[in-house]
Amino acid sequence: MRADGRIAFAGISEISDLAAGLTDRDADSAAVAMVRTRQSRLTKPQGSLGRLEDMAAFLAGWQRRAMPRLDTVQALVFAGNHGVCEQGISPYPQSVTAQMVDNFRRGGAAINQLCRIYGADLSVTALDLDRPTADFTQGPALDEAALLAAVNAGVGAVDPGADLVLLGEMGIGNSTVAAGLACALFGGDPADWVGPGTGLDGAGIARKTAVVAAALARHTRCVDTPADPLAILASLGGREQAALFGAVLAARLLSVPVLLDGFICCAAAAVLHALNPQGLDHALAGHCSAEPGHARLLACLDKEPLLDLGMRLGEGTGAAVALGLLRGALACHTGMATFADAGVDEAGVQT
Amino acid sequence: MRADGRIAFAGISEISDLAAGLTDRDADSAAVAMVRTRQSRLTKPQGSLGRLEDMAAFLAGWQRRAMPRLDTVQALVFAGNHGVCEQGISPYPQSVTAQMVDNFRRGGAAINQLCRIYGADLSVTALDLDRPTADFTQGPALDEAALLAAVNAGVGAVDPGADLVLLGEMGIGNSTVAAGLACALFGGDPADWVGPGTGLDGAGIARKTAVVAAALARHTRCVDTPADPLAILASLGGREQAALFGAVLAARLLSVPVLLDGFICCAAAAVLHALNPQGLDHALAGHCSAEPGHARLLACLDKEPLLDLGMRLGEGTGAAVALGLLRGALACHTGMATFADAGVDEAGVQT
Repeated sequence: MRADGRIAFAGISEISDLAAGLTDRDADSAAVAMVRTRQSRLTKPQGSLGRLEDMAAFLAGWQRRAMPRLDTVQALVFAGNHGVCEQGISPYPQSVTAQMVDNFRRGGAAINQLCRIYGADLSVTALDLDRPTADFTQGPALDEAALLAAVNAGVGAVDPGADLVLLGEMGIGNSTVAAGLACALFGGDPADWVGPGTGLDGAGIARKTAVVAAALARHTRCVDTPADPLAILASLGGREQAALFGAVLAARLLSVPVLLDGFICCAAAAVLHALNPQGLDHALAGHCSAEPGHARLLACLDKEPLLDLGMRLGEGTGAAVALGLLRGALACHTGMATFADAGVDEAGVQT
Repeated sequence: MRADGRIAFAGISEISDLAAGLTDRDADSAAVAMVRTRQSRLTKPQGSLGRLEDMAAFLAGWQRRAMPRLDTVQALVFAGNHGVCEQGISPYPQSVTAQMVDNFRRGGAAINQLCRIYGADLSVTALDLDRPTADFTQGPALDEAALLAAVNAGVGAVDPGADLVLLGEMGIGNSTVAAGLACALFGGDPADWVGPGTGLDGAGIARKTAVVAAALARHTRCVDTPADPLAILASLGGREQAALFGAVLAARLLSVPVLLDGFICCAAAAVLHALNPQGLDHALAGHCSAEPGHARLLACLDKEPLLDLGMRLGEGTGAAVALGLLRGALACHTGMATFADAGVDEAGVQT
C-alpha cells in the first residue's frame, strides 16, 4: 500500500497469496441487509424492480455503506500492442492502437461519448505501444519484469476512493490474446474461443484459430495441468490484459465494485477467477458481447450479463452502457418514497 | 387534427380505416440510409455498436431527420380502475391506484426517479379513478362513449413535437385485463397469459386464470372469429389500456417514435398491431418483464426487447430504463469522430 492508498506490488510472487486471502474479504452483509430492508418499504411490489434492486445491493455491499453512491466513477482503459499481429490475425493494422489512443484523448471515440452521457471519468493508459509483446507462438509474450510493470500500471490506476470502476481495453489483435487466455484457463478447443473480432471472415477465423492452437501447443504446461494462472498471463497475455488483471485485483483488495466489459476484458479478469473463484465477486458483467467466446466465458465465470445488445467494440463501451443501468438502480433506491411516507396501502391490506 | 397539431377522434368508427392506412406511412428511409452511411465512417469496426446503431437508425427514421435528437421526451402514464377487482384478482386494494397517482405527482415513485435520471418529462393522466370499468366477467368493460373518451385522452396526450414518447400505466388489477386482451387477440389458453402480477400466489393465479376464462367465455365473439380488435378493447380493456392504444396510434400518425413498457402496456398496444401488423413499427419494446405473458406477447408482436432485467413494476419503468440506452446510442452517433477526422486507419489498410 502506497502513501496515497493505492497499491503496488514488489513482485509477482506475492500476488498468489493475496488472491488466496480474498476469500475472507467479502461484501459488507450488513449494508446489503439494510438495502434489502429499505427496498421492502419502497412504493412498489416486492422485488418488482428486478435486477435494479440487486444492483443497489451489490453497490452497497462492496462500497460498505447502506446508501451507495456513484459520485466518483472511473473508466480505466488500457491499451497494448501484440507481437502475434505478425501472424495476420486482425483486419486492422497495428498502428490503429496508438491512433485510437489519440482518438480517446481527443474525445472522438465511442467510450468518450458514453462516459460523458453516463457520468464516468475516462482515463486511458497506453502501455509501451512502441514495444509490442513477443509473438506468443514463438515464446512467452511477457517476461516477469514486463508483466509486473503492466500489472502495477493497472493496480495503480484504481482510485481507492472510487465508488465504481469500469474496465476496458484497446489493442489490435487482442481478441486473439483473449482466446488464448480463455482456452488456457478453461480448456476446450481453440475454435470454441476464437471469433471474428473486429471483422475477420471465415478464412481469417481459421488462421486465427490455428495461431491460438499453435500458442497453446507451445505453452503446454498451461493446458496439461492445473497451471499457474499468472504463468498463463505471462505466456499468452498482453500488457493491457496484465493491467486489467491488476486493476480488478486492486479493486477487490480496496472493496471497490467493478463493471467488466466484453470478451477481452473478461478474459483478463478470468486470471483472478482462476486464482480464486471468489476473486470476481465484486465485479458485474456489464454486457454479453457479440464475440462468440464471451457467452462461454461468462458462463465459466458464473456471471449473468446486464445487457445483451450485440455490441463488440471493447474500449469499455459495454461497461459504460451498463453504468447507465446502475444510475437508474441507484436513483430508485435513494429517491423513492416508502409506503409509509407516501400513504400508499401495502399488499394484503383491505380497504 | 386540432389547431395545436394534436389529434382527436370524433368516433371509434374512424379508427379502423386510419389504422389500415398506416401501411403507407413508413419510416423515412432516406434518413435511415444517412445514419447507416455515417455509422460506416465512425471510428469503430463496422456494426460493432450492435443494437445501439439500430436505435440511432430507428430514431432517425421515425423522427424523419438524419441526425436524430432526444431533446423532448415524454413519459405518458395512464391510470385506471377496474371492476374486475371485485373478483379478488390482486393482492392490493383498488385504493392504491389513486394513492400511487398521488405518489407520482409528489415525485416518490420509481418512474419519477427514472424520468429524472434519464431525462423524460413525466405526465400522469388519471382516468375516472372513482368510476371503475364494469366487471368484464359480467358484461363489456366500457361502453362506446367511455372507450372513445379514454382513447382520446391518450391521443391528446402525445405532443406532436416530441422526439420520443415512453408509455406506462398504473391500475390495480390491470395484469388481469392485459391477460384477457392478449388471449382474445392472440389466442392460446388463459393460463398462457396469466401470471402473478404484483405478487399473487399459486391459488391467486388459479383464481385469476378462472376469471380470465370466464370473461373470454362471455365475450365469445372475441375469440371465435377474427374479431374486431376495438370490440375486444371495449369488452375487456380498461380506460388506461384504451388511452395507451390511443397514444401509440397518435404517435404512429405523427411519426413520433415510442418506447413500450411491459406486459400491460404491450397488451394495449397489441390492439393496434391487430388492426395493422405494421401499426407498431414506430415502437421499440423497452424491456421484457418478469410477468410470464410478456415474453409470449413480445413474440406475437415480433419485438425483441432491449432489456431483460426481471422488472415487473409497470409505470413505464422498463421503457424509462431503455431511454437510458437510447441516450447512449444517440451520443455515440452524434458525438463520435469519423476515421477521416481522427486520422485512424480503416480495416484492410496495411501500414
